[in-house]
Amino acid sequence: MAGKRTRVKRLPKRGHYDRQTIDAILDEALVCHIGFEAEGQPYVIPSLHARVGDVLYLHGSSASRMLRRLGEGVPCCVTVTLVDGVVLARAVFDQSVNYRSVVVLGTAQPVADPDEKLAALEALTEQLVPGRWADTRPPTRQELKATAILALPLDEASAKIRTGPPGNAPEDAEDYAGTWTGVLPITQVVGAPVPAPDLPKGVKVPQALADYGRRFAR
Amino acid sequence: MAGKRTRVKRLPKRGHYDRQTIDAILDEALVCHIGFEAEGQPYVIPSLHARVGDVLYLHGSSASRMLRRLGEGVPCCVTVTLVDGVVLARAVFDQSVNYRSVVVLGTAQPVADPDEKLAALEALTEQLVPGRWADTRPPTRQELKATAILALPLDEASAKIRTGPPGNAPEDAEDYAGTWTGVLPITQVVGAPVPAPDLPKGVKVPQALADYGRRFAR
Repeated sequence: MAGKRTRVKRLPKRGHYDRQTIDAILDEALVCHIGFEAEGQPYVIPSLHARVGDVLYLHGSSASRMLRRLGEGVPCCVTVTLVDGVVLARAVFDQSVNYRSVVVLGTAQPVADPDEKLAALEALTEQLVPGRWADTRPPTRQELKATAILALPLDEASAKIRTGPPGNAPEDAEDYAGTWTGVLPITQVVGAPVPAPDLPKGVKVPQALADYGRRFAR
Repeated sequence: MAGKRTRVKRLPKRGHYDRQTIDAILDEALVCHIGFEAEGQPYVIPSLHARVGDVLYLHGSSASRMLRRLGEGVPCCVTVTLVDGVVLARAVFDQSVNYRSVVVLGTAQPVADPDEKLAALEALTEQLVPGRWADTRPPTRQELKATAILALPLDEASAKIRTGPPGNAPEDAEDYAGTWTGVLPITQVVGAPVPAPDLPKGVKVPQALADYGRRFAR
């Protein structure tokens, strides 16, 4: 799974290379950050993603500079990060953050086949809200043409995870005995759905939306 | 503020270039994503950051490959993204996400001056939890040496923001009148502080931590 380039070197205990761990983080995250280079300058752009088996799908406007550049076959890096808490130690040096992140390296291929494009869009839609595909109008031929889909194989990927309490040095226990130390948990939560101005009266919030909050509950 | 490279080309209405908008997003975000290139491969690594005036400070272990590479003066990109909601339209093509993001391009300089290093560490600590610096043990000379601080000037930066309801096409109102459409708000919230196993009994949660949740409240 992980090549030399994705091996976690700093704090190697935090590195994970099994697909179960990697997939769970990719699937939970709503946004990813795509890194690529253009004219000698690296760019990092937030984007949506969806995993189908061994492939991470990315999408955007066919007119997007990023999608066009990625489609040329330049190396890219897609990173996903979930922040779980602020780790408050007694010493500034020991402070940290609990997180789960995945780094995928590779080259994304443009998807030309209309069936695979449609399947990727279904996955991207379901990634936003499970069950949403069935409720929405599928893309027209024109819309499909205006949408670029890229497939990035999960060949070279790794996860990095920090969990648990702060690693306080025993020496600090005395002088800083009065300093509160522990973890401040951070969670992404979903609020009550806000209807669009053009939503007709009487249209109920579907169960998938009402239940959505559970997805991020840990 | 924004050069040609940070001008938002796709959906230019979403682009913002004033420092007030840019700073507010940088200051609210807990993590950033740092993009850089090494041996022809772009990397995107999650990290902590803190803004002091016109400078974005990054830090890490002096032994970190990323910090060493950035310190060589290679171009980098630091991106910060806050996700505010899932935008559910009637058509798959019109679905979106409400977000606020900032992209900073430039070259980071290693900070050698011990006073500036200490001030940057204070800002990074306060960025995690306001008021935390006063409660924690400052870094020793050894710890300062083991910590690399980089300064990235906010010379070339832009923000991209999407807010508001879905942009439904009027044509979809009839056939998909029964589809719920609107926004599912997403917020980062802070849970009850979890004490470290070595926290002595009787140490109270400081007010700054108890009030912390407000920071993300919108």
